[in-house]
Amino acid sequence: MSRLASSVLPSSHTTSLRNKLSPFLFRRNQSHQSLRLRRRNSQFIAMRAVIQRVSSSSVTVDGRIVSEIGPGLLVLIGIHESDTDSDADYICRKVLNMRLFSNETTGKGWDQNVMQRNYGVLLVSQFTLYGFLKGNKPDFHVAMPPEKAKPFYASLVEKFQKAYNPDSVKDGVFGAMMKVSLVNDGPVTMQLDSSQSNKNETNASVES
Amino acid sequence: MSRLASSVLPSSHTTSLRNKLSPFLFRRNQSHQSLRLRRRNSQFIAMRAVIQRVSSSSVTVDGRIVSEIGPGLLVLIGIHESDTDSDADYICRKVLNMRLFSNETTGKGWDQNVMQRNYGVLLVSQFTLYGFLKGNKPDFHVAMPPEKAKPFYASLVEKFQKAYNPDSVKDGVFGAMMKVSLVNDGPVTMQLDSSQSNKNETNASVES
Repeated sequence: MSRLASSVLPSSHTTSLRNKLSPFLFRRNQSHQSLRLRRRNSQFIAMRAVIQRVSSSSVTVDGRIVSEIGPGLLVLIGIHESDTDSDADYICRKVLNMRLFSNETTGKGWDQNVMQRNYGVLLVSQFTLYGFLKGNKPDFHVAMPPEKAKPFYASLVEKFQKAYNPDSVKDGVFGAMMKVSLVNDGPVTMQLDSSQSNKNETNASVES
Repeated sequence: MSRLASSVLPSSHTTSLRNKLSPFLFRRNQSHQSLRLRRRNSQFIAMRAVIQRVSSSSVTVDGRIVSEIGPGLLVLIGIHESDTDSDADYICRKVLNMRLFSNETTGKGWDQNVMQRNYGVLLVSQFTLYGFLKGNKPDFHVAMPPEKAKPFYASLVEKFQKAYNPDSVKDGVFGAMMKVSLVNDGPVTMQLDSSQSNKNETNASVES
């Protein structure tokens, strides 16, 4: 069974494989979820993205490059179990429009978005963005479970491709072990959180 | 004047250079700070880190590699204007102890910290982590100003070196334009926020 398949099958079928393959697959043992964690996590109902401005980036799976871009944005995407289409719409709109590039004609900084430069966007699913530390051990139970996250993430990639263009938006391999290579140019790294959209403005890391 | 020097001199001496070099230096025009932003930003009084588990990472300045590590952690650090030593202590302790590596002997995932594996830590200052979007344009006025951030960041690097060992903890060049290369292994990316320490537990992205 491939890693990809194991990540989207019911956990009862794949427990041993999931344990073997961890830390790359989800752990959702609810018995480990303390009341304290529940209280805290309820504050983070949002899709989360870490955006790095890159000179180039690529994804390698099993020694083979499956995606690559030149200059542009590497976007790591964490999906919360409660995320909806409106979270995806917000992340898509903001990532494509945020002005992280200088204007080559005027020299002005923070002036152009990735589409204005005709640069690439590489999207990579990253459930660990919903990692909470229990002591020093990460816990990922608030991430959307993979059987639901896989189609949801695919629809997010489609949104990006429709809003920009299919050739400029690349993707990793959902659920696979990847090596994600990049050259962060600046560096410039931003955190984006869909809680900043109108539905919930109280836990913002980036303003809408 | 070097980029580094320009970032630590009073802004009145360096305005033209800072404008020329932007987007890599701070912009602190308080007249651009709306009441709405002030209200929101007051919720984010914390040191912020984005931690990527890497197979290797390096920092290049002006075409020359200034730091590199093999397997370990690349840690991008955003310093808020209100950060204190206790924020630095928290980030240092958590980064060094968070269990992001599997145990090679037992095969167990999320079992060992970077020190137990004798891996490298590469710290890179990243003021853009305090970027708020005003519309689609990033605003960085809540980041600690560079003249204060430079020694504060240096003390953070020292904390890491004392808590682990000087040879295993590398650094970028504060205020310089860098190319930060890395191979994110998994990928595994975590966000850490010192608001999770005891002094302020309301806006946690990672639990203490």
